[in-house]
Amino acid sequence: MRNCFVPEGLSLLRIFPIFVIIFICSNMINLSSDYNNGMHPEVLDAFVHTNDEISLTYGADRWSVSARQRIREACQDPEAEIYFLVGGTQTNATVIHSLMNSFQGVIAVESGHINTHEAGAIERTGHKVIALPSSEGGKLSVSVLENYLDAFFADSNYEHCVIPGMVYITFPTELGALYTRKEISEIYEVCKARELVLYVDGARLGYGMTADGSDIDLPWLSRHCDVFYIGGTKVGAICGEAIVFTHGNAPKYFFSYTKQQGALLAKGRLPGIQFETLFTDGLYFKIARHANEMAYKMRDIFISKGYRIAYESPTNQQFFLIPDSRMNWFKSNLIFDEWGHDCHGNTICRFVTSWATTEADLQALSEVI
Amino acid sequence: MRNCFVPEGLSLLRIFPIFVIIFICSNMINLSSDYNNGMHPEVLDAFVHTNDEISLTYGADRWSVSARQRIREACQDPEAEIYFLVGGTQTNATVIHSLMNSFQGVIAVESGHINTHEAGAIERTGHKVIALPSSEGGKLSVSVLENYLDAFFADSNYEHCVIPGMVYITFPTELGALYTRKEISEIYEVCKARELVLYVDGARLGYGMTADGSDIDLPWLSRHCDVFYIGGTKVGAICGEAIVFTHGNAPKYFFSYTKQQGALLAKGRLPGIQFETLFTDGLYFKIARHANEMAYKMRDIFISKGYRIAYESPTNQQFFLIPDSRMNWFKSNLIFDEWGHDCHGNTICRFVTSWATTEADLQALSEVI
Amino acid sequence: MRNCFVPEGLSLLRIFPIFVIIFICSNMINLSSDYNNGMHPEVLDAFVHTNDEISLTYGADRWSVSARQRIREACQDPEAEIYFLVGGTQTNATVIHSLMNSFQGVIAVESGHINTHEAGAIERTGHKVIALPSSEGGKLSVSVLENYLDAFFADSNYEHCVIPGMVYITFPTELGALYTRKEISEIYEVCKARELVLYVDGARLGYGMTADGSDIDLPWLSRHCDVFYIGGTKVGAICGEAIVFTHGNAPKYFFSYTKQQGALLAKGRLPGIQFETLFTDGLYFKIARHANEMAYKMRDIFISKGYRIAYESPTNQQFFLIPDSRMNWFKSNLIFDEWGHDCHGNTICRFVTSWATTEADLQALSEVI
Amino acid sequence: MRNCFVPEGLSLLRIFPIFVIIFICSNMINLSSDYNNGMHPEVLDAFVHTNDEISLTYGADRWSVSARQRIREACQDPEAEIYFLVGGTQTNATVIHSLMNSFQGVIAVESGHINTHEAGAIERTGHKVIALPSSEGGKLSVSVLENYLDAFFADSNYEHCVIPGMVYITFPTELGALYTRKEISEIYEVCKARELVLYVDGARLGYGMTADGSDIDLPWLSRHCDVFYIGGTKVGAICGEAIVFTHGNAPKYFFSYTKQQGALLAKGRLPGIQFETLFTDGLYFKIARHANEMAYKMRDIFISKGYRIAYESPTNQQFFLIPDSRMNWFKSNLIFDEWGHDCHGNTICRFVTSWATTEADLQALSEVI
Repeated sequence: MRNCFVPEGLSLLRIFPIFVIIFICSNMINLSSDYNNGMHPEVLDAFVHTNDEISLTYGADRWSVSARQRIREACQDPEAEIYFLVGGTQTNATVIHSLMNSFQGVIAVESGHINTHEAGAIERTGHKVIALPSSEGGKLSVSVLENYLDAFFADSNYEHCVIPGMVYITFPTELGALYTRKEISEIYEVCKARELVLYVDGARLGYGMTADGSDIDLPWLSRHCDVFYIGGTKVGAICGEAIVFTHGNAPKYFFSYTKQQGALLAKGRLPGIQFETLFTDGLYFKIARHANEMAYKMRDIFISKGYRIAYESPTNQQFFLIPDSRMNWFKSNLIFDEWGHDCHGNTICRFVTSWATTEADLQALSEVI
Repeated sequence: MRNCFVPEGLSLLRIFPIFVIIFICSNMINLSSDYNNGMHPEVLDAFVHTNDEISLTYGADRWSVSARQRIREACQDPEAEIYFLVGGTQTNATVIHSLMNSFQGVIAVESGHINTHEAGAIERTGHKVIALPSSEGGKLSVSVLENYLDAFFADSNYEHCVIPGMVYITFPTELGALYTRKEISEIYEVCKARELVLYVDGARLGYGMTADGSDIDLPWLSRHCDVFYIGGTKVGAICGEAIVFTHGNAPKYFFSYTKQQGALLAKGRLPGIQFETLFTDGLYFKIARHANEMAYKMRDIFISKGYRIAYESPTNQQFFLIPDSRMNWFKSNLIFDEWGHDCHGNTICRFVTSWATTEADLQALSEVI
Repeated sequence: MRNCFVPEGLSLLRIFPIFVIIFICSNMINLSSDYNNGMHPEVLDAFVHTNDEISLTYGADRWSVSARQRIREACQDPEAEIYFLVGGTQTNATVIHSLMNSFQGVIAVESGHINTHEAGAIERTGHKVIALPSSEGGKLSVSVLENYLDAFFADSNYEHCVIPGMVYITFPTELGALYTRKEISEIYEVCKARELVLYVDGARLGYGMTADGSDIDLPWLSRHCDVFYIGGTKVGAICGEAIVFTHGNAPKYFFSYTKQQGALLAKGRLPGIQFETLFTDGLYFKIARHANEMAYKMRDIFISKGYRIAYESPTNQQFFLIPDSRMNWFKSNLIFDEWGHDCHGNTICRFVTSWATTEADLQALSEVI
Repeated sequence: MRNCFVPEGLSLLRIFPIFVIIFICSNMINLSSDYNNGMHPEVLDAFVHTNDEISLTYGADRWSVSARQRIREACQDPEAEIYFLVGGTQTNATVIHSLMNSFQGVIAVESGHINTHEAGAIERTGHKVIALPSSEGGKLSVSVLENYLDAFFADSNYEHCVIPGMVYITFPTELGALYTRKEISEIYEVCKARELVLYVDGARLGYGMTADGSDIDLPWLSRHCDVFYIGGTKVGAICGEAIVFTHGNAPKYFFSYTKQQGALLAKGRLPGIQFETLFTDGLYFKIARHANEMAYKMRDIFISKGYRIAYESPTNQQFFLIPDSRMNWFKSNLIFDEWGHDCHGNTICRFVTSWATTEADLQALSEVI
């Protein structure tokens, strides 16, 4: 788990010969993301062992069929309809567009992924992201939501504005925080009262569901939202997200929607075999739980070294305040993300674990920080 | 290379238990497409051996960097810019949208893939596909193109119509036919004279470049169009297309375009390692040549059995006229695609080879037809 | 009714001083279109007399309210919902987009206005125009439609293609021809069987309904399609089209749709007062009938001078074959549109009448041709 | 200048018979907007006197040509290119879309019209509105802009976000406030340094330029932004906005863009004759100055009656704090807009003057408040 850090992004790669970069990178612990690795070994194994088989295409292959069935069972939702796409932004744009009318917008917190880091993919499909203030941990508070909706529909000119059509939340949030059952239930009640779709972005769903203190599982979530996705890319797959339209909520011709969005894989077997494996013997949740446990240990190491937590997170993303005076040292020895600054001379830094994080990595970490 | 055939598509899968389908399929030769298989064994091998490495993300990984360099070298175009996407429709929509203004349309033949089988992905990005009549083999004839353009700009009201901004051709065509150097040169001259972008869809580029009689190779193509893509999905990859913006033709911020279209992979290493392998020791063209040779042998078998060719093709897609009276037998023993009917009691059928087609498959074929 | 002809369009205006153009134009009969004039005098009168009144905005003014009521009565459709927009392309794009899902396309004949002369406005909203061959007079034949639909849905891969969602026809057609009750009924039956919306573009609806031999009137049409529009711009208004969603077919929040499309007038009174006047004492149809009668007389003049009809039309657009040898003379004395060439040395020319065409114009015409 | 007030918008019209509404409205002073009237009398006069003339279409008519020339002269910008559209939202969407690439967004303050009251028209064209906090008077502060841009481009991952491509400001703002020359100059410098287009929404441009203390005029503005529009609908026209692409900034084929957006009038003479008249003998600015003077008198009346100003405005929109206890009385006697509440028991109310506001209206006002 050592690798290179390229501060100026892609452009550097155009300038420096590769070997220089590799040299620079050779002794660093990489905690920058949960998608800097390959397939989980068990997933890889299944992938390799089915590679020679000839299959149906476009998601009709036997692994995709089986994976859908396993997910339906895991959700205890026999009517759920499952589609496999290959990335979070693609999934968000396709799902959101498929369930809204042109005149509708999607409500999200300001820090929501669709509002910040998707290069305008939602707007590209014609819809406004209606950004509401984030509450603690990057969550959408039900009172913020209700106040917005009450004020919106109280305005006699509201038909001149973007009509809200959907509420988008992430579980866990971009800051690793979790909604409780009570919170999601309340949001869902508001959605139903206002005829809004509730969509849960589960790019890191597994980490949320296996976190200490979490009371959300798949069957419960399936009954408390209209659509969500089970993120695979960040939880053991090389790529793949499983969209779950719960209990009869799939739009007609969603298959054609995915094709139109360029989101349909010819060799649908790629996500199929991965999700079939992830949903065999609970592998998906085992992977997530492992990363969470590594994260808790990592947190203990930081705390024991005197660093303070920036945002409380029970999941695989951990945020610490690193004194600016230590940043050069950190950057020379670790790969991680900077998220901003506080007002007291600290940088907010994110450190992420995954299936590939080992005890040895943590040991090495504790030695350099 | 045996597998199942599901005539009514996905819907059947919702009705029949899986095992029934598998039973039905157990003794059939599958020549339905070149994307019904997994990774080519050498690609798989490289994929497996690099899986444990931690890498940069979003296409900055070392394999993507290396693959870009190898493709630039193969094209003898040091200025070429290369991007990896995961499917043909996605690639077409992203490239076409990135290089046209809103008021422009893309010219294609009526049978062009973007006009027929992409579920309106181009129109979704706001652009009309200006469909011109197909010439022999599904090619765009330069005279058809010129006549259209001359008439278009001669109309004093042309600013009320969709202004052509790009010409889209496929190499080889949807019917497996090839353009000659002379034909592409002439089309490119027309494009330059009219300030149109020339874009070559190379979903099956390898099959075209290694076909008997083909005089087009990568360096030549790189000098005779503005952008093309090297199809991986149909030539040995599990997914992946390499867009080549030739000699300085890449639009600014194409990276952001791909993100906005949901076409950016978090784990860009997936196409990276595949294309690095495909462009090591000419593997890409070896795979294609193998499939072409299998196709020629397949053609000989059909001819020796008295079947006639529907469309002449020097590539891995072969089209034969099957008497309607024989169709039930064919459908019971082979998996293939039906493309229509002639006026003399025949069905036009497509049979496709790939890296996974073996001599044993052809032997079996010759025994059942 | 004399005016200038500018063969090369706007560009000429940038080069020549205005007075030169006006000089060129001073002695020419203008039969180039039915939108080269101002408001019909009765409409103008109503407009002037209500100008000083302060009113509600965005279509809530008393004239718009009254105009909607009158149109509902004229259609004998108390449930019809009426919206006023300001141009044909705007109306087509807004209506079509509001009634289709993203994955759907709209069927039209190749010569349909949305397919040829709207600069890609439909595609801009994300939808493909599915162009079927035109039948006689530019009409969509029910058999062409049925054959297309049968073949489309018979293809097991149709979900990879653009799903038809609407049928678009024009009444009268771009060539001035009329559908019969039987023809529209049959098309509507097909639409209902396939769950397609039937939309009738009535840019010149009045001319069609008052044509000799026409059996279509507003009440009948309201019962035999889902939505149509009553063209005002070409029938006496300065701008304005009345969309009629028949018997409960209006989409929710269509008001917001129009705003989003930039099609909502702040001073909605402008189309309101015009349509209220046009639908008082049958003025709309009187205007149309006058133009048709002028067209019939014009046709007699052409025939008596030995010219032949290019396309039979019972409406205000007439098409004649003008020998190429006569074209210079024609262009020096008349303003009209050229529509193409036949194979016998003739140019197909269009001559159009309107409320502003007078007996004196026809007298002058008969003297110069 | 008396008219009806419909608190619940259009829906009321569907319930109450018209005559009841008219009865309710009969004795009220209407200060709700500057677009509740018809054409200014001089504009109407010109419209009427040219109505019988036959003209060129689609903006090539002699009045449009002349109006363009007069506006170029008023701007002292011989290279300016002028286009006439019919409404603010339509103009904003068309201009913004025509000057940005797909991956770009437009920066505006949160209270900017494009961000709040255009029903998502900008997003419909595929672009995000990047909303920055509003400064005093609803203005965009240059420091807020610079800080945003500095932080944006400092983020090494900015290519995953919406790239800013344009800055949108309104002059005057939605709250009637004015930018100074210094402020606009500074914003324009930032724009040029970052290669951003500066676009000024001038829906009420005349009111801003003739306001007490304003130092912005047309020639200055033409040299200090890339594109702006001169609002006609709110300054004496029945509809019409004149887009001014300054000194060579017009995009290619903007005519086709307008057609594609459904924004091209067949009878382009309608805005043409209006703008020709408005730009004859300075009528446009006379109208605006009259309304401003009425606004100042109205402000004096409110102040003399003890009401307090909510937002300072030197233009035709005035904002006062009305004690909630007085609101019923106000609503029974005046037509105006409510804009929100302060924390001290007051409603923020907007009162707007226009060319149609008379001394008698103000006299009546002073008697009822």
